[in-house]
Amino acid sequence: MEMDLNADLGEGFGSWPMGDDSALLEVVTSANVACGFHAGDPSIMRRVTGEAVERGVAIGAHVGYADKPGFGRRFVDVEPAALRDEVVYQIGALDAFARVAGDRVRYVKPHGALYNTIGHHKEQAAAVVGAVVDYDRSLPVLGLPGSAWLRLAAEAGLTVVHEAFADRAYTPAGTLVSRRESGSVLHDADEIAARCTAMATGQPIRDSLGGKLTVEPASICVHGDTPGAVGIARRVRSALEGAGVTLSPFSR
Amino acid sequence: MEMDLNADLGEGFGSWPMGDDSALLEVVTSANVACGFHAGDPSIMRRVTGEAVERGVAIGAHVGYADKPGFGRRFVDVEPAALRDEVVYQIGALDAFARVAGDRVRYVKPHGALYNTIGHHKEQAAAVVGAVVDYDRSLPVLGLPGSAWLRLAAEAGLTVVHEAFADRAYTPAGTLVSRRESGSVLHDADEIAARCTAMATGQPIRDSLGGKLTVEPASICVHGDTPGAVGIARRVRSALEGAGVTLSPFSR
Amino acid sequence: MEMDLNADLGEGFGSWPMGDDSALLEVVTSANVACGFHAGDPSIMRRVTGEAVERGVAIGAHVGYADKPGFGRRFVDVEPAALRDEVVYQIGALDAFARVAGDRVRYVKPHGALYNTIGHHKEQAAAVVGAVVDYDRSLPVLGLPGSAWLRLAAEAGLTVVHEAFADRAYTPAGTLVSRRESGSVLHDADEIAARCTAMATGQPIRDSLGGKLTVEPASICVHGDTPGAVGIARRVRSALEGAGVTLSPFSR
Amino acid sequence: MEMDLNADLGEGFGSWPMGDDSALLEVVTSANVACGFHAGDPSIMRRVTGEAVERGVAIGAHVGYADKPGFGRRFVDVEPAALRDEVVYQIGALDAFARVAGDRVRYVKPHGALYNTIGHHKEQAAAVVGAVVDYDRSLPVLGLPGSAWLRLAAEAGLTVVHEAFADRAYTPAGTLVSRRESGSVLHDADEIAARCTAMATGQPIRDSLGGKLTVEPASICVHGDTPGAVGIARRVRSALEGAGVTLSPFSR
Repeated sequence: MEMDLNADLGEGFGSWPMGDDSALLEVVTSANVACGFHAGDPSIMRRVTGEAVERGVAIGAHVGYADKPGFGRRFVDVEPAALRDEVVYQIGALDAFARVAGDRVRYVKPHGALYNTIGHHKEQAAAVVGAVVDYDRSLPVLGLPGSAWLRLAAEAGLTVVHEAFADRAYTPAGTLVSRRESGSVLHDADEIAARCTAMATGQPIRDSLGGKLTVEPASICVHGDTPGAVGIARRVRSALEGAGVTLSPFSR
Repeated sequence: MEMDLNADLGEGFGSWPMGDDSALLEVVTSANVACGFHAGDPSIMRRVTGEAVERGVAIGAHVGYADKPGFGRRFVDVEPAALRDEVVYQIGALDAFARVAGDRVRYVKPHGALYNTIGHHKEQAAAVVGAVVDYDRSLPVLGLPGSAWLRLAAEAGLTVVHEAFADRAYTPAGTLVSRRESGSVLHDADEIAARCTAMATGQPIRDSLGGKLTVEPASICVHGDTPGAVGIARRVRSALEGAGVTLSPFSR
Repeated sequence: MEMDLNADLGEGFGSWPMGDDSALLEVVTSANVACGFHAGDPSIMRRVTGEAVERGVAIGAHVGYADKPGFGRRFVDVEPAALRDEVVYQIGALDAFARVAGDRVRYVKPHGALYNTIGHHKEQAAAVVGAVVDYDRSLPVLGLPGSAWLRLAAEAGLTVVHEAFADRAYTPAGTLVSRRESGSVLHDADEIAARCTAMATGQPIRDSLGGKLTVEPASICVHGDTPGAVGIARRVRSALEGAGVTLSPFSR
Repeated sequence: MEMDLNADLGEGFGSWPMGDDSALLEVVTSANVACGFHAGDPSIMRRVTGEAVERGVAIGAHVGYADKPGFGRRFVDVEPAALRDEVVYQIGALDAFARVAGDRVRYVKPHGALYNTIGHHKEQAAAVVGAVVDYDRSLPVLGLPGSAWLRLAAEAGLTVVHEAFADRAYTPAGTLVSRRESGSVLHDADEIAARCTAMATGQPIRDSLGGKLTVEPASICVHGDTPGAVGIARRVRSALEGAGVTLSPFSR
């Protein structure tokens, strides 16, 4: 049994740090690295890609809207052609650092509002798909099953990879419970770790109505920037290893 | 006899155009394309690289300070390590579009205040050299003979390429007459074209004191964003062709 | 009979000009001056406010989304509280230059996508209204009759001022014909001038179905950044003056 | 005996916090509030100015270079005319929030590299002075005795206010020991507090060569963004109060 753990990294900017990149890089196997549009800057990108390569962590392009003031967390109604170009730009910039570090960008995962938007917004989803096709159609893309993003990516011939969220409640239909509802986010490290172990070993988890739900992701997303994030991520990793799951990048 | 003509392109930003990229791409053989830091944006970069490849024009990374309000024309005392990272970022971003268009970045030429600064500022010059070494040590770099930039680049094993400016007066020592002095910039298209022809055919030009000066550049820089720029560039090209000079990218 | 003509000004940025501010300032009576978020910069703001005061043109804060790459023309789903703060910031910054020039900001008119959005988006409309209330509740606000923006502004006790667009077709209901429909934008200077004269003198104009429609704006918006814009604006002004209409800022 | 304590506040940006503004506002009497160019954003400016007014802390415009990636800590060779406009813009934007909160900007203190540069760079110093003269010549300016900044401000008729740094070593000449030298920054809270008490009560402090130096500032600058900063600031305040010094804004 193998599982990938992914987290958002390199989300500082200039003199403003965010999260503990080095600590998280000892836990995850895939790093979604900010590309300087919603967060990150060239020096952070160099440092994070360098450390990722040293630790055997796969580098993914965490592409977002060009919106540092909003941290990429608000929808921008950017024209699809412009969005496609912005995503190509971001992948290329990050790939430069990945190559300097001796590896390369291994996958693409959109960030924040862009991630949420292309779950349903076909024109923007197609734009991001188009950017990956433009840049390198061998790059896998990471997302939620059922999203417009992964559906259009698959139609375009890209390799699609399903992820699950370690700390989010799921509906019986297998979709995420909205953050606006109570109980949508789990906070107990043991519960989160147990769910991840279940998902990684083919066991069902408890859905939001108490039923059984089987989620079989190829990667599990853990958070990097919340209080206690690193502790929870470590707990998840250790539970997976304790259950005999080998931690390994999905892109290998 | 062969000669390369280079010019700065892709210097618009968003809704603000600058220069006539398409017209210039029919004249020059090497395009210094802005990478989104001092000018340019992803969509402009895609369009210009696409048109350059269609016309057989070589694509160079026109890297600059991260300073759109100042158009990269004012010195920024950025730490060398950060500058090195910023240059890697810019080359990588432009290379993405060059590759999408079916080619790749063929050389590096700094822009504006960065170009001027690294003529003498060793730390920043070394930073830009380091970035090229990091990204791809086979990339030639374009600059002025005698600059710290080309000297350090040569010491680092990079291929250095000398350029001359079509419309600038030269001192007897072969350096540019400062823009602050009268007569430092030529405006007559015929005179400019005649000088370029002389430089391309190994003939001496007249220096600022009236003496003879032989300048043997591998590339001649023509301007793209001044009134009449395209007309002058066309005049230069036509004079060179009339003198039997073949126009061809230096990077071929 | 009096009428105000307003136009967007100060929409350049750094080395990138846009429109002919000086020429337009000889035509209009109210200048919607960009505040550095979607366009404009401090030096442009100083120059335009200075020239406006010299010519007796009223200065309005043309507030927009913080989006220079998109020129403020694309919706950004910014949280209302943040939007309110961004609008206060913009008005204050412009007011500094208006005061340096010997006058002050006389009204507020949102730009581009923000203008369109707050026609119907109540939360963002309330945010912009709140910003004006915060900054100076004596400032009039300019917009379209029927918009959420003006309705909420009136409810908040602000002075609302109706504007019409010189070159846009109107439906029988008095709303603008969508730009996506053919015939939505008028291009003939004489026709535009005749409509403006009709609107200024209480005569009906022809609506998009050929019926008569009476539009009684307190200000007419002419464009500044399209080809021929200045010429059309001059034609409108001269037609109004020829019909005995006095051109005067609505905020006087 | 009275003394003012000033500190830099509002230095976060978007999702990136910096320092503990609320805690510092309980200690200092003057808040140098970032204006969105090197740090800060409209929502942070509203929050900090609101809390400052609640606590009776005077609001100063902490103006800087337009350089968020460098946090305003690197010299930018911006043209003096442009710098003057940028400073007017920043003061006006902050003043908007100060007025919304029921007060107004009470003084101007440049930040980081701008502060250091205008200690000796006359053209940029004159530009900042000019901006204050433009905006409101009744605003005091805060700086180091002997700086070009204060000298030119005095010549222009502005009220100049001398500050000292709580944690910096002084040469026998009364200038700061360069940060490049060892011992230039004090770290012991008790030592720092004792120095501040000496300076506030007219007693000499020990200079870097062991001699006695009398420093009589009208304000003492404490840091806000270093580890332990709030603790040191509290220690300083409590020592001053223990020595019978009344803490009060210099601008009252």
